[in-house]
Amino acid sequence: MPPRELSTPIGRLVVVGVGLIGGSVALAARERGVAHRVVGVVRSEASRRRVLASGVVEHATRDLAAAAASADAVVVCTPVGALERSLLRAAESCPAGVLLTDAGSTKAELVAGVEAGLARLAARPLFVGSHPLAGDHRTGPESARADLFAGRLVVLTPTPATPPAAIEYAEGLWHGLGAQTTRMPPAEHDRRLAQTSHGPHVVAASLAAATPADALPLTATGWRDATRIAAGDPELWREIVMANRGATVAAIDRVLAELAGVREAIAGGDHALLTDLLTRARERRDAVGD
Amino acid sequence: MPPRELSTPIGRLVVVGVGLIGGSVALAARERGVAHRVVGVVRSEASRRRVLASGVVEHATRDLAAAAASADAVVVCTPVGALERSLLRAAESCPAGVLLTDAGSTKAELVAGVEAGLARLAARPLFVGSHPLAGDHRTGPESARADLFAGRLVVLTPTPATPPAAIEYAEGLWHGLGAQTTRMPPAEHDRRLAQTSHGPHVVAASLAAATPADALPLTATGWRDATRIAAGDPELWREIVMANRGATVAAIDRVLAELAGVREAIAGGDHALLTDLLTRARERRDAVGD
Repeated sequence: MPPRELSTPIGRLVVVGVGLIGGSVALAARERGVAHRVVGVVRSEASRRRVLASGVVEHATRDLAAAAASADAVVVCTPVGALERSLLRAAESCPAGVLLTDAGSTKAELVAGVEAGLARLAARPLFVGSHPLAGDHRTGPESARADLFAGRLVVLTPTPATPPAAIEYAEGLWHGLGAQTTRMPPAEHDRRLAQTSHGPHVVAASLAAATPADALPLTATGWRDATRIAAGDPELWREIVMANRGATVAAIDRVLAELAGVREAIAGGDHALLTDLLTRARERRDAVGD
Repeated sequence: MPPRELSTPIGRLVVVGVGLIGGSVALAARERGVAHRVVGVVRSEASRRRVLASGVVEHATRDLAAAAASADAVVVCTPVGALERSLLRAAESCPAGVLLTDAGSTKAELVAGVEAGLARLAARPLFVGSHPLAGDHRTGPESARADLFAGRLVVLTPTPATPPAAIEYAEGLWHGLGAQTTRMPPAEHDRRLAQTSHGPHVVAASLAAATPADALPLTATGWRDATRIAAGDPELWREIVMANRGATVAAIDRVLAELAGVREAIAGGDHALLTDLLTRARERRDAVGD
């Protein structure tokens, strides 16, 4: 759906985890007047000094509970492996009716876990899962940009348990940060993202790892483009892939089938089959744009 | 080796095939004063009008024999499937001692075929194979750029039959166009380029083709980078891959082995093996630069 501005700026926006994504949420919220005050929550004193030095937030604290208790909206941007715990810890301190969302790359296990945890709370925030399709192989608050979400798509993953107000509030927040939004069930999100992100990451990494070191001086733009995402953080990506194992394996199997098929075509000198693959690939690629 | 300027500009440089690569040779030669006169050779009257309209050359002809007969240097930039014929047709008309080279992506079959053909000629040009590691998924003279070769590597593929003057003259030409050069035997070139270009092209195409159409709206920077080369011309790439079948199949097999291995690690929940692949991939990728 089209971008829609929040009718009222958020009073206090709390961003938990101030790296590339969280830092960009904070910068965009400040630059676009989405919130009156943005508070970053970090784990260590070193991180607190680092995020303040980077300039992405003016206020930073290690006290998640206190920050959540006075929040009007909370966006949790910690790594996938820490998301469920961070979201539930924030939820325990949030006043009822506060927006609680995240920026994680996988959704089915996470949303199920958070919803199970929320069901045990008396006062519940308005929770819906979010995944902004924006990022970079660079990490850390120093890589954050106020325009990281501009024109990008954010997938919201409501379930039958999601309060409608959570969806509308989250859409307003992301639209305020410059993004567009779409909605789909968590499992559908994970299946599609395995095909467009998690599987492709593993393929690009396999390609990079399979290239002999002595051939690297002969790489050019093609290899560099094709392997760029393989420069991403191994721990972050291990967590993402393992949190979406089944769908990622299915996506890899589709690539393995195509690649094994065209390998046979090349070995057998089957020009028509090779042309067919290259033509289908170009059509698929051209459908997306540069 | 470091760039080295030609001591004397080339009198008449003939560029056979004026697309992205040939057009960029022509533009760079004119802009850098590498030749007094640049003549483009094309196959049709329509192409002649097109290359003149694009502005990459001021002189264009369909008469390869006449152009070659008055050339001081000839660079053949036709598609891989037409290279051997174009090189030998140029060679038949070139005066002895004229530089004859090409810009083809595969070398072993080509160089062997050209050298066999040259052996039957009484007056022989100075031939050495060249492969500039520069390009774009866009094609045609309208995509040509004077800086396409600036800072890029050109691989020269001399054999025991190559006149030393051909190597030095070709190095001077490419250095004059802004490139750096290296030398290696044709078979070694083909083996390495299969690992850094021909195999990766097939992998990227397989990834693009394996992505379901309904997932395309959820692609982001990662997928777009990883599949960008799949937008290349299917016919040009079919010719390249089929001209280097054995080495390309070997390169694909290395990727298949990595990908099948990590697929098992993911399916089996083996976090350590997945981290190992992602770490090796990042090290390989980081060794190259953005």
